[in-house]
Amino acid sequence: MSERNFMTLLRAKWAEGKFVCVGLDSDFGKIPDVLRGKHLGIQNTIVKFNAEIINATENFVCAYKLNLAFYEARMLEGYRALLATVREIHAVAPDVPVILDAKRADIGSTNEEYARALFEHLEADAVTVNPYLGGEALRPFLDRADKGIFVLCRTSNPGAGEFQDLEVTNRALPLYQCVAYRVATAWNKNNNCALVVGATRPQELAEVRRVVDDMPILIPGIGAQGGDLEATVKAGKNSQGQGIIVNASRSIIYASAEADFAEAAGRETQKLHDQIDRHLTTRK
Amino acid sequence: MSERNFMTLLRAKWAEGKFVCVGLDSDFGKIPDVLRGKHLGIQNTIVKFNAEIINATENFVCAYKLNLAFYEARMLEGYRALLATVREIHAVAPDVPVILDAKRADIGSTNEEYARALFEHLEADAVTVNPYLGGEALRPFLDRADKGIFVLCRTSNPGAGEFQDLEVTNRALPLYQCVAYRVATAWNKNNNCALVVGATRPQELAEVRRVVDDMPILIPGIGAQGGDLEATVKAGKNSQGQGIIVNASRSIIYASAEADFAEAAGRETQKLHDQIDRHLTTRK
Repeated sequence: MSERNFMTLLRAKWAEGKFVCVGLDSDFGKIPDVLRGKHLGIQNTIVKFNAEIINATENFVCAYKLNLAFYEARMLEGYRALLATVREIHAVAPDVPVILDAKRADIGSTNEEYARALFEHLEADAVTVNPYLGGEALRPFLDRADKGIFVLCRTSNPGAGEFQDLEVTNRALPLYQCVAYRVATAWNKNNNCALVVGATRPQELAEVRRVVDDMPILIPGIGAQGGDLEATVKAGKNSQGQGIIVNASRSIIYASAEADFAEAAGRETQKLHDQIDRHLTTRK
Repeated sequence: MSERNFMTLLRAKWAEGKFVCVGLDSDFGKIPDVLRGKHLGIQNTIVKFNAEIINATENFVCAYKLNLAFYEARMLEGYRALLATVREIHAVAPDVPVILDAKRADIGSTNEEYARALFEHLEADAVTVNPYLGGEALRPFLDRADKGIFVLCRTSNPGAGEFQDLEVTNRALPLYQCVAYRVATAWNKNNNCALVVGATRPQELAEVRRVVDDMPILIPGIGAQGGDLEATVKAGKNSQGQGIIVNASRSIIYASAEADFAEAAGRETQKLHDQIDRHLTTRK
């Protein structure tokens, strides 16, 4: 895996016209009864659920994203399920990069430990990080030229604006745009940076796209959170008609609560893929 | 433990004149050879190291803080060591609250999972959180009236100012002071909020203290990071001559690399305790 490179993997998927990211935020309590009824234990149930979803969706995705909270909530079994799932993706779909949605940030010496946990032990191709401590603190992440570093810029929760919308005096820009600007101009020395911008406000996504040129943007908030896909795709695409990673989690992995959950997940993923394709290729 | 309450525990320790927090950021690679040479395995070595430090320091502290990064970097063994250490503190020093320094933040539904992991499974009395997503997203933490919620306000790393110092237009205040203001006025409905303000710039600590009245402030950056203790204590204390939690990690737990490491940790903790006591009681 020494030559494995996140941006190379991602661009290869984009070249295939794939922009969907499936969020494997698999909550044991929401896994269909048909699987839980097999009494495999928490760890194996989650891994089997994820493996079937991966198998049904891998042809349509540019990445998988796993939010660590859902695994940490299940303690040791969740941790083992997380690691087994990442390894399953690497085995079954070795050309699909894995984003660990950890939103970590601490002082530099502490971030070295987080980076070790996420990249070495958990075998992530990319991670999400929080910008509040600044780029200097994030060096243990940013220095990894082979990995993707997704910086939270504009989040998709209702209260996101409390600080992110505050206008910063000497730039006359809201804070989230300052974050985008700093990432694009100062943090991206290894061309490994990307941003997280929620789908809920396409106009803001368009403003971030202007600031960061062709940098990849991970867009959560499609599906269960209800963002407008067409406006999102048109606002988010870069000069190459690419540049976006459209994440859907709950609307795909819980598309059916029955025995056909994997088939349904595959169908929803393909549907999202086809819709993005249409919005990217129609001019407006 | 249903009536266990973080703020009550903390205030009882303050009433005893205790303001030191020992940071059990125990890195297996830095544990004295005398312990590692016993070949107990990573998990048991870390737990034994922590247990001896706890035993030697518990009479002088108002809290223990464990940064999750150092445990996550050791995977399953680190996770088990983390849980065993928290339980050791609850058993040996049940009146000393445990702060898990996780710096978590995500959208609300995801924070519910993090809160479950930290409060229920890992038995934390308090946690640190990142403000970037706003107070609405942090509700699963803020709603827990029995727990302490420490919001990152001003961090102690060299690049902390990149965003935290940006002046916000409509308040003519830097962002970190806006965070302090919002926490004090809008987030603290359950009187369970506190702030994290690094010790490196006492003047900023004084400004935060003015904004948040008597709210507890956790102050990392003393010791290995080199903050000025006297200026920090005078800038940080509240109207009761209390209100501060002064954290030291490396300067205490690695005070000696020999067999007397626990004794040395106890000595350093008492020394810091006595210094704070002197600075709190001398007028100036």
